Amino acid sequence: MLVTFSSPRFKDEDVHSVGDDIENRGGKALPGVSVSNVANFGGISSERSKWKRKSIVTLALTILTSSQAILIVWSKRAGKYEYSVTTANFSVEALKCALSLAALLRIWRREGVTEDNRLSTTLDEVSVYPIPAALYLVKNLLQYYIFAYVDAPGYQILKNLNIISTGVLYRIILKKKLSEIQWAGFILLCAGCTTAQLNSSSDQVLQTPFQGWVMAIAMALLSGFAGVYTEAIIKKRPSRNINVQNFWLYIFGMGFNAIAILVQDFDAVMNNGIAVSMVMKYADNIVKVYSTSVAMLLTAVVSVFLFGFHLSLAFFLGSTIVSVSVYLHSIGKVQR
Amino acid sequence: MLVTFSSPRFKDEDVHSVGDDIENRGGKALPGVSVSNVANFGGISSERSKWKRKSIVTLALTILTSSQAILIVWSKRAGKYEYSVTTANFSVEALKCALSLAALLRIWRREGVTEDNRLSTTLDEVSVYPIPAALYLVKNLLQYYIFAYVDAPGYQILKNLNIISTGVLYRIILKKKLSEIQWAGFILLCAGCTTAQLNSSSDQVLQTPFQGWVMAIAMALLSGFAGVYTEAIIKKRPSRNINVQNFWLYIFGMGFNAIAILVQDFDAVMNNGIAVSMVMKYADNIVKVYSTSVAMLLTAVVSVFLFGFHLSLAFFLGSTIVSVSVYLHSIGKVQR
Repeated sequence: MLVTFSSPRFKDEDVHSVGDDIENRGGKALPGVSVSNVANFGGISSERSKWKRKSIVTLALTILTSSQAILIVWSKRAGKYEYSVTTANFSVEALKCALSLAALLRIWRREGVTEDNRLSTTLDEVSVYPIPAALYLVKNLLQYYIFAYVDAPGYQILKNLNIISTGVLYRIILKKKLSEIQWAGFILLCAGCTTAQLNSSSDQVLQTPFQGWVMAIAMALLSGFAGVYTEAIIKKRPSRNINVQNFWLYIFGMGFNAIAILVQDFDAVMNNGIAVSMVMKYADNIVKVYSTSVAMLLTAVVSVFLFGFHLSLAFFLGSTIVSVSVYLHSIGKVQR
Repeated sequence: MLVTFSSPRFKDEDVHSVGDDIENRGGKALPGVSVSNVANFGGISSERSKWKRKSIVTLALTILTSSQAILIVWSKRAGKYEYSVTTANFSVEALKCALSLAALLRIWRREGVTEDNRLSTTLDEVSVYPIPAALYLVKNLLQYYIFAYVDAPGYQILKNLNIISTGVLYRIILKKKLSEIQWAGFILLCAGCTTAQLNSSSDQVLQTPFQGWVMAIAMALLSGFAGVYTEAIIKKRPSRNINVQNFWLYIFGMGFNAIAILVQDFDAVMNNGIAVSMVMKYADNIVKVYSTSVAMLLTAVVSVFLFGFHLSLAFFLGSTIVSVSVYLHSIGKVQR
């Protein structure tokens, strides 16, 4: 008998944080990366170059998310982390914050301090930055209670509701339209990701009590709202330097995390911190959802070679469905 | 713990013939039904009424296929059939043949014998009728050998390759085009049906040896070819009465079955006999594939109420995917 690869083996309990990381880190690009790209794309503004930029950002995000997930699994292979996860997460966030500042320093030296790249901010601008971090905080508090109703593998499956909530909130809050074909693709993305995670115990999720469903939907809405709200913040000031925007979002994320750590041992907050990146500036939440989903599949395929995981039939089916979904998303746009 | 409903429980071994029946009987409508419909639709020929006719035929086929499958499961509920399956199948086919003749008698009395509804035929016309039956015979002979490489639940999953082979041969032989979106829908239909059938032992199908795959693909091509060829035969003479066409196809199917029964106890031949019906005349193989897939899902849902089956998460996911696929098929047509 083969040991089959499927989500719980990969995502829950002993690799639980990977799922969180894929989902939430996905949105953040390293500020170091963004500097050069912003410079490259600065002067171009045609529709074609916009598309090109979006594709590069998407590809970069997919690869970054996959490699991050793989590194995390790798570092945990011995069975346990040999470092403090809380400290590691805090260090990574602090590093990103520092990189944002370093990138800004380079830009200031080259272009001087302008209205768009100055670090100082108005109350009007800065007042919205704590909101995504606050939403994630509430979501993570809920996470402690949902486990009274759902087990870990079931929670991984329910998390796919995020895909649907992101699509719905994207439509309502950002008022961006998806075509019918793109909606079809989005439903398939959710079904495909869930299919790829199926294993013999997945059926238990159907016995989730009503309270569990309510909490899962509330968490999906909170996480979707945080993502969409971040996109709204970033895109509201398109000329504002992304490193400044990242800096402020990281600062508030770190602040909320620090509070949470003081109150209790609260690993997940920083991990689930604010999703902010090139993707929000040059692409959108939909691209983020697709990138992280494809990254999940890529991670699994790479894990086959690196760690000897075995892929299940459900995984192949799920991958096929997600692929068709990606195709429909692109074809849907052309025909809009 | 729930006893979950999933294909092998429903389709293999003790209800094995249901799968075959859904797949193959699906194509045949009762001649009695076709008479009145043909009369109803006789004079109308606009694009809109064609679409309406196709929809009614599709709906009728879906309901007939589901109810047939449900009746078969029902009759087997005690654990075993209390009648000879071979005899029952033969009787059903003979009955259909007789109904074709009875329908013809009514038409002859009303309209007189014409060029289109006379039973006698030319060698040129009749020579193609044995081909689908012969193809099914070869396919069913192969079925005996494939079980050396694949178990029954695995075979049920591999049978979904029929969907893809039907699409490919439909394109090649009938030279009818499917749009990109319809192709996407077709791949999803195959993935969705397979997903709906997933259970804990499904992964074993991935260890099918090379010979097993070759045979499964050959069987899918034979069965797809038989379906598409039947459509070509029926549509080649659009004015020819469908009861005459049914009659000749049934005659040759019965002939091949009789031969097979003489050679060995060969249950499946008639069961897998010729697929011919209203669908082939007024719709096509693609509609047949969709009808039988939806019928499979409907049958499972009805079985929940009738027999207390439980539906698996995989079944819900598969149903969602198949539904999106049906939607894409219809939307794909409009935009062609």
